[in-house]
Amino acid sequence: MGVPRVGGGPMTSAVAQEIAVVVGKAACPKGFVSAGGACGIKAGGKPDLALTLCPEGASAAGIFTTNLLRAAPVTISQAHLRASGGRARVVLINSGCANAATGPDGEHRAQAMVDAAAACAGCAREEVLIASTGLIGSTLPVDKIAHGAPALAERASSDGLMDFARAILTTDATTKTALARVEHEGRSFLVSGVAKGAGMIHPNMATMLAMVLTDAAVEPEPLDAMLRIGADRSFHRISVDGDTSTNDCVFALASGAAGEFPEALVREAMARVMRALAIQVVQDGEGARKLIHVRAHGAIDAAQALAVAQTVASSLLVRTAVAGGDPNWGRIIAAIGRADPRVDMVRLRVEAGGVVFYEHDAPTPDARAVLSRVVGGRDVVIDARLGLGDASDEFFSCDLTQEYVRINSEYST
Amino acid sequence: MGVPRVGGGPMTSAVAQEIAVVVGKAACPKGFVSAGGACGIKAGGKPDLALTLCPEGASAAGIFTTNLLRAAPVTISQAHLRASGGRARVVLINSGCANAATGPDGEHRAQAMVDAAAACAGCAREEVLIASTGLIGSTLPVDKIAHGAPALAERASSDGLMDFARAILTTDATTKTALARVEHEGRSFLVSGVAKGAGMIHPNMATMLAMVLTDAAVEPEPLDAMLRIGADRSFHRISVDGDTSTNDCVFALASGAAGEFPEALVREAMARVMRALAIQVVQDGEGARKLIHVRAHGAIDAAQALAVAQTVASSLLVRTAVAGGDPNWGRIIAAIGRADPRVDMVRLRVEAGGVVFYEHDAPTPDARAVLSRVVGGRDVVIDARLGLGDASDEFFSCDLTQEYVRINSEYST
Repeated sequence: MGVPRVGGGPMTSAVAQEIAVVVGKAACPKGFVSAGGACGIKAGGKPDLALTLCPEGASAAGIFTTNLLRAAPVTISQAHLRASGGRARVVLINSGCANAATGPDGEHRAQAMVDAAAACAGCAREEVLIASTGLIGSTLPVDKIAHGAPALAERASSDGLMDFARAILTTDATTKTALARVEHEGRSFLVSGVAKGAGMIHPNMATMLAMVLTDAAVEPEPLDAMLRIGADRSFHRISVDGDTSTNDCVFALASGAAGEFPEALVREAMARVMRALAIQVVQDGEGARKLIHVRAHGAIDAAQALAVAQTVASSLLVRTAVAGGDPNWGRIIAAIGRADPRVDMVRLRVEAGGVVFYEHDAPTPDARAVLSRVVGGRDVVIDARLGLGDASDEFFSCDLTQEYVRINSEYST
Repeated sequence: MGVPRVGGGPMTSAVAQEIAVVVGKAACPKGFVSAGGACGIKAGGKPDLALTLCPEGASAAGIFTTNLLRAAPVTISQAHLRASGGRARVVLINSGCANAATGPDGEHRAQAMVDAAAACAGCAREEVLIASTGLIGSTLPVDKIAHGAPALAERASSDGLMDFARAILTTDATTKTALARVEHEGRSFLVSGVAKGAGMIHPNMATMLAMVLTDAAVEPEPLDAMLRIGADRSFHRISVDGDTSTNDCVFALASGAAGEFPEALVREAMARVMRALAIQVVQDGEGARKLIHVRAHGAIDAAQALAVAQTVASSLLVRTAVAGGDPNWGRIIAAIGRADPRVDMVRLRVEAGGVVFYEHDAPTPDARAVLSRVVGGRDVVIDARLGLGDASDEFFSCDLTQEYVRINSEYST
């Protein structure tokens, strides 16, 4: 997919002007050390264990899959955040085994993983966050994790977040990282994020995980709100295949080591880092070669804006047309036509790559030419201008290729 | 896809025992004559024009696409049903051109098509139902239709419904027909249906159309109710790609020539014929080789039953796993896990081909073997037993193959 090209995002406040996000980089904010390496879960010595420590403790928040088939590490991390009142000292994540649909045995093994992490950090069990990703239904080799974790803890450093990013991957082709250094009145703070995910679900492939760290001081409650707002603008605005996984987790941790900053500034920086991560997840979508970015403007309300953006971006027929470089404008218009009953097709104006190809209830004479140029490229940007109100939203997807089907139709054995 | 194998369906009343549906056959009920042939819209003299006449008039009802991008023939047929109070004398359908997104010119050409049909039937314009299917955005060659329709009217006969079924096809590999002859207290009536559709949307491919004829006497209002109930059990329970088209129409006509029968009996016969048609549409899904039939039992309410059946049947990951013959039980369970928040994973029991592979919150030891046998076949039947209440529902889909992506990523030129 090459280097991700989108790191910005819509401005939501004046302070947001100060924020620039660099994709492809990760660095531990003050108060955190990280490491990643191999503990033997994956064959061939591939990285499969990732650790982040916050020795002085951090505010912590999490968002978890809504799938009722929830892996043991998901329910445990949720319970820990509740029990600790939103505090954490260590995050331990393994790849190569999702520890999902593994019953009471999976629960015991996940608890043993917690014990190993707590021993590394010298902290209470409830200050541990864990996550697992990989094949569903297989037994977690927790002995390997317990053996590997202390070594990681020993060499964890402020330079170790890129190694962490590598160690949480499964079928991902690339690491997903983003970094924002925000200057404000002569001081600065960092927000750094890592993610993994190429499809939404097991087996043999990605479940979405992400971790966002900052050294800005944020109490657990506002941190939780920031995480949710950020996710609404990022991980809740992407789709590879419409499935939600058994293991999805997004963690946010704030060490406070850089001191206090305006809440709006930290919130915006977190949201942008998360958005940059989310886009990288889609760009690495299974079999994908192109990013589809659909924006809806002038909607009656937020629900309509989201419906239009999501329906177009998620349409199998739009996604297959983009895969084939097919200037098939009718599929885009038809997707808008089924997205929300309050759309007015006469007021609708639709652009591809910034050029109008549909207005006044009909395609422009050069509609196919306009769309040809855009779907022939790597970033397919569609703007639907509804002309009905002030709400807007966006959604990201990727092209749907034969390779996607090949990957997902292969035997899980 | 071979010969469709499913023609029955759930019983909804005692009288329903009398009904058997034969798929692959069509015959005009008394009071109707039909014909199909070529008028020159498609290249190579392929059938592209279909006509059904009801000289004495018929009760009529229609269901139309909810897409706001509605083709001219859709809006016209809707208006005619309202104006006539649910009466019709002629149905005229062309394939090879959808006359959608064609603006005022498309409207005029559709009106000219109405004139041609009215002249054939010697009836008022409002007694005409029309439909078009094929490429979106291209101009309807209505002169060819006006020239071809009288010839069809001349040779329309009670044997002509199979020709009608052939003439409405676009990318379909096979005709879709179903026939029920219902005996009741020494008399009988017919319900015969034809359909087309292989994907849900233009261009270069199917939009779903269907027509169901009966000689039972049914007034327009109950006929409309029967059509909606039938669609809820058939065309609203299938998905090839989640897109809804610009041209979908389902017509029902009742000539009354066979006299009156119990309403429940006619309703059930119509519903079964429509279900048999809907299954044939899915079996002919673009690139499809397998039918996926998901049933949800023991649900709290109808919404939950539908959500579970539809979510599993529509999951891209389930559909790609079926395409590859992959016994990937985790994808099925995870789809159930995201379908409805009221599902209780501990009470859940799931069967493939009638054999349990998941219960007590875990797969059975032979889960992969059970699923291997089922996904290796052509009819993949999954039963999700929720253990929560009395509601049930079903949903049909097909496997998602690389061929589907190839068909839909090719240039629309």
